[in-house]
Amino acid sequence: MQINERVEALRKEMKKAGLSAWIINGTDPHQSEYVCDRWHSRRWISGFTGSAGTVVVTQDEALIWVDSRYFVQCQAQIAGTVFTMKKIDGPEASSPVDWLRSRFEKGGKVGISAETLMISAKKRYEEKGIEIVAMDDLLDLIWTDRPAMPDLPVEKMDDDLTGRSVAEKIAEIRELGNQNGEDYHLVSSLDDIAWILNLRGRDIDDTPVFLAHLLIGPDSVKLFTPAGRFVSVKPEGYDVLPYDSVSDVLSSLCNVTVRLNPERINMRMKNALDKAKDVRLSFGREYSTDLKAAKNETELEGMRIAHILDGVALVNFLAMVKRNEYDFTEVSIAKALSDEREKEEDYLGPSFSTIAGFGAHGAVVHYSATEETDIPITGNGLLVLDSGGQYTCGTTDITRTLLFGEATQEQKEDYTLVLKGHLALASQVFPKGTTGHQLDVLAHQFLWQKGMDYFHGTGHGVGHRLSVHEGPQRVSSKQGTGAPVALEKGMVISDEPGIYKEGKHGLRIENLIAVTEAMKTEFGEFYTFEVLTCCPYERDLIVKEMLTQDEIDAVNEYHRWVKEILIDMVDEDSKEYLVSATAPL
Amino acid sequence: MQINERVEALRKEMKKAGLSAWIINGTDPHQSEYVCDRWHSRRWISGFTGSAGTVVVTQDEALIWVDSRYFVQCQAQIAGTVFTMKKIDGPEASSPVDWLRSRFEKGGKVGISAETLMISAKKRYEEKGIEIVAMDDLLDLIWTDRPAMPDLPVEKMDDDLTGRSVAEKIAEIRELGNQNGEDYHLVSSLDDIAWILNLRGRDIDDTPVFLAHLLIGPDSVKLFTPAGRFVSVKPEGYDVLPYDSVSDVLSSLCNVTVRLNPERINMRMKNALDKAKDVRLSFGREYSTDLKAAKNETELEGMRIAHILDGVALVNFLAMVKRNEYDFTEVSIAKALSDEREKEEDYLGPSFSTIAGFGAHGAVVHYSATEETDIPITGNGLLVLDSGGQYTCGTTDITRTLLFGEATQEQKEDYTLVLKGHLALASQVFPKGTTGHQLDVLAHQFLWQKGMDYFHGTGHGVGHRLSVHEGPQRVSSKQGTGAPVALEKGMVISDEPGIYKEGKHGLRIENLIAVTEAMKTEFGEFYTFEVLTCCPYERDLIVKEMLTQDEIDAVNEYHRWVKEILIDMVDEDSKEYLVSATAPL
Repeated sequence: MQINERVEALRKEMKKAGLSAWIINGTDPHQSEYVCDRWHSRRWISGFTGSAGTVVVTQDEALIWVDSRYFVQCQAQIAGTVFTMKKIDGPEASSPVDWLRSRFEKGGKVGISAETLMISAKKRYEEKGIEIVAMDDLLDLIWTDRPAMPDLPVEKMDDDLTGRSVAEKIAEIRELGNQNGEDYHLVSSLDDIAWILNLRGRDIDDTPVFLAHLLIGPDSVKLFTPAGRFVSVKPEGYDVLPYDSVSDVLSSLCNVTVRLNPERINMRMKNALDKAKDVRLSFGREYSTDLKAAKNETELEGMRIAHILDGVALVNFLAMVKRNEYDFTEVSIAKALSDEREKEEDYLGPSFSTIAGFGAHGAVVHYSATEETDIPITGNGLLVLDSGGQYTCGTTDITRTLLFGEATQEQKEDYTLVLKGHLALASQVFPKGTTGHQLDVLAHQFLWQKGMDYFHGTGHGVGHRLSVHEGPQRVSSKQGTGAPVALEKGMVISDEPGIYKEGKHGLRIENLIAVTEAMKTEFGEFYTFEVLTCCPYERDLIVKEMLTQDEIDAVNEYHRWVKEILIDMVDEDSKEYLVSATAPL
Repeated sequence: MQINERVEALRKEMKKAGLSAWIINGTDPHQSEYVCDRWHSRRWISGFTGSAGTVVVTQDEALIWVDSRYFVQCQAQIAGTVFTMKKIDGPEASSPVDWLRSRFEKGGKVGISAETLMISAKKRYEEKGIEIVAMDDLLDLIWTDRPAMPDLPVEKMDDDLTGRSVAEKIAEIRELGNQNGEDYHLVSSLDDIAWILNLRGRDIDDTPVFLAHLLIGPDSVKLFTPAGRFVSVKPEGYDVLPYDSVSDVLSSLCNVTVRLNPERINMRMKNALDKAKDVRLSFGREYSTDLKAAKNETELEGMRIAHILDGVALVNFLAMVKRNEYDFTEVSIAKALSDEREKEEDYLGPSFSTIAGFGAHGAVVHYSATEETDIPITGNGLLVLDSGGQYTCGTTDITRTLLFGEATQEQKEDYTLVLKGHLALASQVFPKGTTGHQLDVLAHQFLWQKGMDYFHGTGHGVGHRLSVHEGPQRVSSKQGTGAPVALEKGMVISDEPGIYKEGKHGLRIENLIAVTEAMKTEFGEFYTFEVLTCCPYERDLIVKEMLTQDEIDAVNEYHRWVKEILIDMVDEDSKEYLVSATAPL
């Protein structure tokens, strides 16, 4: 069945159901950032393979809204189909919500799969006056070979890796709930569930989670997931029930208060709760999200080790690249880095798809090299290399910008401005209670001074052998919605300013850093950052004259530490590179 | 009638009215920061003369909540009366709202003057479950010699000082309202009214406003204020009606939409609107607040001139102080500065009460020297001198920390850290859309690095020959409520980091700076600041070795500019001081 036939089949089902439009937002029932095959519904209906976008089908139109990083790719992928692309940012921006409102202002039911519509998303549609019907997925009626719900085995992380037992974590969540009069905690966020139960899965590429819902009650814990996952692991302290039975269990609750996050609980669950008798809902972020973000000493120690192992692989890789023995392309250099990581026995796989953009490709922030776009890395140019690994004890995420051939003065100055911001954020001492939004300007300041800017976030949270993007903390020039989130002790964030000049070059420098205690004084408690990432900067791109003495000292001290940690661990023929790459400026 | 008798008289009236409690919040009907005598109700009932605090009287208690800057003063002023002080911050903090809620959880009507209760404040009480009755002021029944509503003459500011005519301002407000379907604009904020009508008054000390309400309709403008104000000024383009007649006019509106700011419109007005037929309320900040904040080129030029005139007075004053001819106290040195400003014919008076705190007094952020606290300025020590002037063409606000005798190394280092933050904020280039909250860390960063902090805002808006504190913009580590406010071209803010070490010393450096265009690049539009304040820093307190070359250059360039501007304007015997104070570091 081809795209156009799929759309026609959907339209028939829409007609039967009395719907004027059908929305496919492409998320899974857990609002996961990355989804498994079963939930690649946007890709199935439209052919578009990007990671974000919203499809709206009516009887006479088939539209897909994507953001600027996907304009070219989407246009190419939907060519020859009934789909028309719409832009959600840039000068010709529109939004599905506004389009639906104007299209159906005189009435018209808009259907969507209840499983992929979160409570708060439904509210946002309704606030715009759209009559939204959250129901069983129409795709189930026409997508005959839709992949089944995955049931891959889970793995247990021992307490010596997690630092806290499942029982301790559940007790703390219950205690926090008690303080707010909450009896039950309904959790659908997959990394929260994995963290609470000290389990890791492999349903989704690069993110070691497994599809499940979790209901923590006053004296029971119920995990809704295929029992087939528990091959080598024995459930301890919780009962395993079928994934779909969560609705029945929720409907049978009576006279209790349930804590849930409306951004992460879907309308199928909400509809089930609405059937329950005398159930009060307490809306708020999962307590586990905050507990998970502020890593304990065992988790931090695991993150440190993971970054050292990653540093070994990176330095061996960089030494090999700098020896200039091979002719690389963007695709093959990413493969070479991956091969180097594979040599470490505690390496489990990438934490996300490597970004390797050379020359002008480096200026495409979310560039993903494919067979069609791949170019040889040759001549003079900068390579933006953003990659990360999952290790048994932690997760890494690092960007280094590598120089091939000779750099222009502009490239060196740009690199140095980015480095100055990167160092300023990492070295800042700040009072407890400070948010990432407050600190963001430290990373931007030197670029702004020259009329330059980057438009992605400066920092995102990173999980402990979990999601490479996790909240609630972040460092961004955007304020974000909801209450501001302070940087708490043990939180891990990325520190990744960059600069992107279209058609010329891009560059980004990224370390992971962890919030740590700095001092207590008469003025209060102060935190600062510990740098986790262990890998040299690109020395040949640094203009020493643009650095203050404090900045020179910071680079030299970082390089001294990198060399000291790695010199006895890297391959013999990598040592010369490591020594020269970490030599004092 | 003494305090206790006043409270007893109030209790009798409360009983007659069937009220369990009466609140006196001490504001005026316009939510002004400073109030005129008629509205010093908190002072009248309690004897406490501070600028903030909330009184609650029940049949058996009389309480006053104040913040930490007033703990000592309030305790002393209420000694011997029936009043008990409560703290709204610090370790023993409580709040009137929470106290009222717990005291009257089983019921009890809480009365308050409708004129001093803003719409949004009433909502905040009600959200806590308090049964609040907004009514005629009971004090009117017992405060027999209550000062009358002031009716002092207003003065017109010509268009060559304001840059825009009243007609233009009203047309723009109407146009903005039309875009939102609003027919009427109800404005009670006194500086907004003064700005819109290009009038200045003298009802309130130091802030040249006059008490009035303003109603801008589709084809009429009504100013509710005593007609007696219009002695030398002829109302042009608006009708003058009695202050109290605003209620009747509002009640007679029919089938229109009225824009108003619930933070600035009181319940007497709201009650009147509720009586009107088919009136829709559109809540939002007054358009004039944003128009007023982004000053036009004429207003900015006036601000520049005011700062130069102020600089002349300051340098003459500083030269005299540095010549060490007189024995000053905190009170007399403030008087000497005021005398110097009085010599300028365009000087109209102070823009707020001067803060002059010597030695340990400098560490009291809101210190106000009185006869009782006054100390001689003698020996070694720092003087924090925060003052400002109203000039015919603009408003100034400046803090300089002056060294008397010898400074300790700690004092010099503290001064230099504060100076570095002050310079960092003023010199930052930032993209259009950036808020003061985002830039705040620039002023804090060097202090935080040493475990030091200050807890007041870094910057507040300043009016054009108007309020020395005006919104909506500010620079603060606190996010604030409501939508974030971007720094727009023409906005004037203070740049005033400080450090306060209890029992030792305090210091603060404050300039006013205006948002100005920096550049347009492929990355967007960038702004930066123009420094308005024209007065040397305290050179002897600067540790040059702690400054980067950029910072040294910035201080030298500022001092070069100050000298160039002022050298021909200051007194002959001030020139030597000016030359040495502005010599390159």
